[in-house]
Amino acid sequence: MSTRTETDTMGGIEVPSDKYYGAQTARSLMNFDIGGERMPLEIVHAFGILKKAAAITNTKLGLMDETVRDLIVAAADEVIAGKLDAHFPLVVWQTGSGTQSNMNVNEVISNRAIEMAGGEMGSKTPVHPNDHVNMSQSSNDTYPTAMHIAAVTIVEEALFPKVTLLRDTLDAKAKEHMEVVKIGRTHLQDATPITLGQEISGWVAQIDQALAAVKTTLPQLRELALGGTAVGTGLNAHPDYAVTVAGEIARLSGHQFVTAPNKFAVLAGHDAFVGASGALKQLAAALMKVANDVRWLASGPRSGLGEITIPENEPGSSIMPGKVNPTQSEAMTMVVTQVMGNDATIGFAASQGNFELNVFKPVIAYNFIQSVRLLADAAKSFNDNCAVGIEPNRARIKEHLDNSLMLVTALNRKIGYDNAAKIAKTAHRNGTTLREEAIALGLLTGAEFDAEVRPEAMVGPLPKRG
Amino acid sequence: MSTRTETDTMGGIEVPSDKYYGAQTARSLMNFDIGGERMPLEIVHAFGILKKAAAITNTKLGLMDETVRDLIVAAADEVIAGKLDAHFPLVVWQTGSGTQSNMNVNEVISNRAIEMAGGEMGSKTPVHPNDHVNMSQSSNDTYPTAMHIAAVTIVEEALFPKVTLLRDTLDAKAKEHMEVVKIGRTHLQDATPITLGQEISGWVAQIDQALAAVKTTLPQLRELALGGTAVGTGLNAHPDYAVTVAGEIARLSGHQFVTAPNKFAVLAGHDAFVGASGALKQLAAALMKVANDVRWLASGPRSGLGEITIPENEPGSSIMPGKVNPTQSEAMTMVVTQVMGNDATIGFAASQGNFELNVFKPVIAYNFIQSVRLLADAAKSFNDNCAVGIEPNRARIKEHLDNSLMLVTALNRKIGYDNAAKIAKTAHRNGTTLREEAIALGLLTGAEFDAEVRPEAMVGPLPKRG
Amino acid sequence: MSTRTETDTMGGIEVPSDKYYGAQTARSLMNFDIGGERMPLEIVHAFGILKKAAAITNTKLGLMDETVRDLIVAAADEVIAGKLDAHFPLVVWQTGSGTQSNMNVNEVISNRAIEMAGGEMGSKTPVHPNDHVNMSQSSNDTYPTAMHIAAVTIVEEALFPKVTLLRDTLDAKAKEHMEVVKIGRTHLQDATPITLGQEISGWVAQIDQALAAVKTTLPQLRELALGGTAVGTGLNAHPDYAVTVAGEIARLSGHQFVTAPNKFAVLAGHDAFVGASGALKQLAAALMKVANDVRWLASGPRSGLGEITIPENEPGSSIMPGKVNPTQSEAMTMVVTQVMGNDATIGFAASQGNFELNVFKPVIAYNFIQSVRLLADAAKSFNDNCAVGIEPNRARIKEHLDNSLMLVTALNRKIGYDNAAKIAKTAHRNGTTLREEAIALGLLTGAEFDAEVRPEAMVGPLPKRG
Amino acid sequence: MSTRTETDTMGGIEVPSDKYYGAQTARSLMNFDIGGERMPLEIVHAFGILKKAAAITNTKLGLMDETVRDLIVAAADEVIAGKLDAHFPLVVWQTGSGTQSNMNVNEVISNRAIEMAGGEMGSKTPVHPNDHVNMSQSSNDTYPTAMHIAAVTIVEEALFPKVTLLRDTLDAKAKEHMEVVKIGRTHLQDATPITLGQEISGWVAQIDQALAAVKTTLPQLRELALGGTAVGTGLNAHPDYAVTVAGEIARLSGHQFVTAPNKFAVLAGHDAFVGASGALKQLAAALMKVANDVRWLASGPRSGLGEITIPENEPGSSIMPGKVNPTQSEAMTMVVTQVMGNDATIGFAASQGNFELNVFKPVIAYNFIQSVRLLADAAKSFNDNCAVGIEPNRARIKEHLDNSLMLVTALNRKIGYDNAAKIAKTAHRNGTTLREEAIALGLLTGAEFDAEVRPEAMVGPLPKRG
Repeated sequence: MSTRTETDTMGGIEVPSDKYYGAQTARSLMNFDIGGERMPLEIVHAFGILKKAAAITNTKLGLMDETVRDLIVAAADEVIAGKLDAHFPLVVWQTGSGTQSNMNVNEVISNRAIEMAGGEMGSKTPVHPNDHVNMSQSSNDTYPTAMHIAAVTIVEEALFPKVTLLRDTLDAKAKEHMEVVKIGRTHLQDATPITLGQEISGWVAQIDQALAAVKTTLPQLRELALGGTAVGTGLNAHPDYAVTVAGEIARLSGHQFVTAPNKFAVLAGHDAFVGASGALKQLAAALMKVANDVRWLASGPRSGLGEITIPENEPGSSIMPGKVNPTQSEAMTMVVTQVMGNDATIGFAASQGNFELNVFKPVIAYNFIQSVRLLADAAKSFNDNCAVGIEPNRARIKEHLDNSLMLVTALNRKIGYDNAAKIAKTAHRNGTTLREEAIALGLLTGAEFDAEVRPEAMVGPLPKRG
Repeated sequence: MSTRTETDTMGGIEVPSDKYYGAQTARSLMNFDIGGERMPLEIVHAFGILKKAAAITNTKLGLMDETVRDLIVAAADEVIAGKLDAHFPLVVWQTGSGTQSNMNVNEVISNRAIEMAGGEMGSKTPVHPNDHVNMSQSSNDTYPTAMHIAAVTIVEEALFPKVTLLRDTLDAKAKEHMEVVKIGRTHLQDATPITLGQEISGWVAQIDQALAAVKTTLPQLRELALGGTAVGTGLNAHPDYAVTVAGEIARLSGHQFVTAPNKFAVLAGHDAFVGASGALKQLAAALMKVANDVRWLASGPRSGLGEITIPENEPGSSIMPGKVNPTQSEAMTMVVTQVMGNDATIGFAASQGNFELNVFKPVIAYNFIQSVRLLADAAKSFNDNCAVGIEPNRARIKEHLDNSLMLVTALNRKIGYDNAAKIAKTAHRNGTTLREEAIALGLLTGAEFDAEVRPEAMVGPLPKRG
Repeated sequence: MSTRTETDTMGGIEVPSDKYYGAQTARSLMNFDIGGERMPLEIVHAFGILKKAAAITNTKLGLMDETVRDLIVAAADEVIAGKLDAHFPLVVWQTGSGTQSNMNVNEVISNRAIEMAGGEMGSKTPVHPNDHVNMSQSSNDTYPTAMHIAAVTIVEEALFPKVTLLRDTLDAKAKEHMEVVKIGRTHLQDATPITLGQEISGWVAQIDQALAAVKTTLPQLRELALGGTAVGTGLNAHPDYAVTVAGEIARLSGHQFVTAPNKFAVLAGHDAFVGASGALKQLAAALMKVANDVRWLASGPRSGLGEITIPENEPGSSIMPGKVNPTQSEAMTMVVTQVMGNDATIGFAASQGNFELNVFKPVIAYNFIQSVRLLADAAKSFNDNCAVGIEPNRARIKEHLDNSLMLVTALNRKIGYDNAAKIAKTAHRNGTTLREEAIALGLLTGAEFDAEVRPEAMVGPLPKRG
Repeated sequence: MSTRTETDTMGGIEVPSDKYYGAQTARSLMNFDIGGERMPLEIVHAFGILKKAAAITNTKLGLMDETVRDLIVAAADEVIAGKLDAHFPLVVWQTGSGTQSNMNVNEVISNRAIEMAGGEMGSKTPVHPNDHVNMSQSSNDTYPTAMHIAAVTIVEEALFPKVTLLRDTLDAKAKEHMEVVKIGRTHLQDATPITLGQEISGWVAQIDQALAAVKTTLPQLRELALGGTAVGTGLNAHPDYAVTVAGEIARLSGHQFVTAPNKFAVLAGHDAFVGASGALKQLAAALMKVANDVRWLASGPRSGLGEITIPENEPGSSIMPGKVNPTQSEAMTMVVTQVMGNDATIGFAASQGNFELNVFKPVIAYNFIQSVRLLADAAKSFNDNCAVGIEPNRARIKEHLDNSLMLVTALNRKIGYDNAAKIAKTAHRNGTTLREEAIALGLLTGAEFDAEVRPEAMVGPLPKRG
């Protein structure tokens, strides 16, 4: 492998010639040979925005000349566009402040900028990784800033649209099937009727609640630590830096961001992620309910509930036609268990700050971004490969509804509770229908029974459905 | 033990004569001899409000005569006031819909109302537990309604005031000590200076963020299921019932409540508790940070950090005067671990709904209320017995600050980075002070050193603190 | 309220005259007004054994005269027997070392012993709470010792017998129904046949695995910290003390205990509880599976799976005869979610030790004991009120089995895969039976079909069931 | 991209020409575009062993001819060796039975075998993915078997050696520094003396306990599901298959494995992973304690505890020489939080089985393997880059010890408790030493003091250290 020598304050170290990163990245690769979970690219790209915004702000404040700024901006644009992803090899399990990933970005932008300027990589001239790319910054304020940029971006660009896609599909299904009367179930036991559309509307409402919950957690994620520098005091930063750079980040990213009102809190705690992850968990709980209901309603084809059908996407078994495994529900519910575990990790990690710094930043970022990504992708996959194809099995729905003993409720006002109960008990004991026993007991004629027992009249408050 | 016979649809059963509860409560005591965790009294009292509001609403809607209403209201008032607490013996580990606790309330109010009316307990006349106390209701919509009433009430009446008390104490301490310059610490290692007030302001900001997070979760808890009846359709309820009864509950409780827009969702899911518990976990994480910082800063008295002192509340050791165990931090951090575990329980339980009902209601209620109660009480205890007495140990703070090698940062602009580094490295190697080595190396005079190295100028952005 | 004055090194304090506890307990009540969760009585009773064993050992080693020993033993016996439970009012949320509960025990035994000796309560003569009851001990080694005694005792005396009761009931059911052939289900979808007995045998095997897992964690819980005193060095303890007192505790408790080989580890960490709680979580997961299978198999009565029936223990609905809510499954699954959350608390808390002490002892004890108690009680309740009454619904089982399209598998060898698939596909499309289509397609006669398609031959490896 | 057509029962689909996988893998890539977490290669390699063992067993039992067997064995050997890793692109979030990964293996082995035989890829001749590679198997029994093979292998080959490496380093440090007397700390407060070696021996004992705990969970992981086929009955498998194939797997892998005594349990539950993950969590808790103690003891360099020094592995700050950030502790503690979250995921997922199958297999495998990998790697990294370089800072240790007020304990027997307390209280108030005040108060001479107050005599039971 061809290498070049890069240096830091501990001396020289060989790095691969085809990589832009420098000595501190190389050292981290040696010192942290742990697992294989890379620093999420969402964080890397957010760092690109951050470094670009910082360069622009430093120039605005008279601290950086325009030539250096332009070089940094050009290199940072490549980071943002994902062109340099291969140059960010570090894992999550490094220093807890994310210092090495911050330096990884500084080194890559520096060397790429040097290359653009026709200089020699590793020379730190004309763009120095610390003095220029990291100007007015500390890992302690850049890494949490990148966390917040990445979090807001992925929630707004991936989670909301993908989950809304599923929500809208279900909402359309709810409206389409609002008049399909079916049996309701509580405690898994037969209960009074409900329409399929009502049942699905409950799923939609749960998802809507969860999306609303996630939205309420965004304001705290929009608050950026940048400007706090090493310990939150802003030492060595220009007094106007924090506000200005937050504005630049908002402009460049297209998402709302402001400077955090108290920098000590946002270096030393990452509690905003705890609240936000709690809202993701709310979404996960809602999606678990939906995915479970779907697979139970689709269970069968002969010996399950079988009230809906879902698309067949892959071979179930070559010998059992009609066996459709609810694989999208399975992927979704596995994602849910992952999100719940990630939430436990985030809560624990966020609680462990000491004094001026929380040093569990990368693990919080990794888990939060994974949770968002998985929920977003699973929602889209579930939508495209399952929800769009949900259809009622009207024959089965009718069979379940007609057989239901609790329709007897409708007779209470006509023949009194005691007689109604007698019909139901007899039918249950004999394995017959309510109608049969009503007639056999001489309590109603078939015509009378049919006039009274109308499930479609039982799916709302009296006198009309709400 | 003197008993009387109470009956339900399964027949008669003996209950203690001195208890108002009836057959279904007695049956639950036999069938669920599990643990000893009682249904939280917050739920019982919330049920009192609910039953009172239901009776008033039923009368308004022409369904209940005023005599019965007045009896129910009178008995419910005693439930609300806690006078009948001894009559609610059921445990959390019962039916997952909370049916038996709903019936416990119905039975107690019925029998107490009967007693007030001069009737015979167990006769169900003139106030019937089902037909009157439970009119227009189902366990499936009452229990979640009681959960929401109890949750909003305890958050607004206990959590907010008690945590705010602590927050305000810390805020006053922050302002009082805003000029006490001390060493900052990142990665537990000495870093650039900060003031004690700044450090404490970070704690305040973390608590403020968390309180704001909890507040954003309240709107979903204010939405009540009542009116959904058995499966969410509102079967057997008056069309105006849901909106009216929610208004009554708001009026009686003094807290904001509205009827839930989709009843299917709030019977089948309790995701609002997941989001709200996530916000409690955010608060827990913040309080862990505060409690840990306090005990570490107070560690010693001789061989720890010792930068603050805290009140001595109980004997540490009869032989080690000055040993103050940070017991309030210990109670607080234990509470934090409990809240985090409770959050895991709530998320899991809330995800397990099927079709028209989630049958993990009591365990969700129990954990949520415990979390709120513990955070509220621990905050007040920590405030009264610790935070109010936090005082800086100025001698120790000065010693740590003066010895700090990183003050050399201040010399960068005067003598250059290389010379500054030389001073610091030499002092570290020799175990001496920066001042001694600066003079010994001939780089500055003592007077020059004193003029340049001023920690109090290092606690904000240049040229002034932010 | 009548009071007397008790004193500690901080001075005098009033305590209720009718309580045996002293100044430090009274002070804790004031300083820790948090929640209402009492120190578990299992811990209190374990302390009784500990204090008795310590007194006996101290006398053996020549450190305590026999008169004092006998008084302590007499008072400790009352603690062990639960006669003094009302004198232990402290909550879990106190000092993290459990010091105040240790002192609570010392004070109660001292005052009760003084009373027995005809002395004056509070006089600390002739039995001093520290000098005598706490001789050769520190809270730091007594509290974890009490944790271990309580844990082993409740696991062996409550968990094992109660869960085994359920296991044995299920095992008998498995054997009883080993020949009842029914449809198997994978992915909730119809699959090849299985017998009901085989299905239940899987539940038994899961429980057996879990019980075995819990058993493997006991050896570490049998190791006692006593003898480590304040920091694990055993300062002020007799060299023979640790081994001797562990032997006494084993003898008095009737459970195996030994002295821990390294005292530093067992004061500073409580990792044994993490492993043991993990095994409890394994048991919880197994019981969740069992409880869920039971309620799904019993779902209906008409529109669910309905393959088994379970006892009706309480009124479901007065209008829906035959509706049996699976309330024991609900209680059990709620317990499972609690155990999983408790496990999260225990893991977090156990990880937070520093140097010579972990100060999350009470919260670990509280959660572990709650988990064991709930699992034990729920298993017994589930056994008595549900499992013993599980019965197959043979008609429904047969209906599901006969309708199953996957029985076509049996024809592969007779008519080839392609023809078999054609039968199944046609039956699925037409909603008919395999037999009907086999005849209609001219592939087999009815007699041939009946000879080949025998579900009872499909429930084991070829040629015979394993 | 060059492609070829592969087929399954749903028809044809294009796959990249340079990939060995077939139609079902391609379909899964389309249907599960979720996240980027690949099925762990440990699972893929375990499948290689499984498929090889199955082929050998099928031939032994007369079901497969030797030519096909040899082709399968040759291709499987390449899977085992990791040569075909690029051909396993599927993610974790697929069908919950892992069916698609099982088919991925079947397809790759089939096509690679066909290629070796000079056949046409996709032709399924002479080695068919289902009929040959999957002979006597079902996804339902192969996937859990691969989970167990992978789990035992990574625990025994990675976790045990790497954690033992750290354990042995610490054990050597403990022995080396067994006589370095230092201050003990409880509640973070100064306590009686301990030696550095004793303190480190506590870490070793915690790790030893945890390793022992993990070991006790292995027997259940050694039990293999293979032979249960689709629902646990072993339908279509030879009666001798299960036992024989488990023996082959043991032989080929070099690890102990047996066939599971009850196949229903091991398809429908994965509780063994819950117990095993609980033991991993115990290890995580122990490592958290060690990593935290190390970074606190190394805190400083001037204003922390500073009792040990640890290696400087990367630049801390160019301006603060001597600032060594405890980055290995940070990586380790982040890993710990991940393991705890993973444990929550595993417990939840394992509890969600229904009837004959648990469909959360891939997420359980992913989390368990990640936990093991991270703990193993972090232990080695911590060992190599931190633990081996831990050295006592004897000057600081002595300073802390000499200043400690609790050494006064040693004077109790000489001058009585009251006089000793007077010395300690006076020294604490005046900020002086015990020796100074002892002399000033006229209670002892300096020589007497020196003779009595000997910390090295306080680190064990009387009369000698244990």
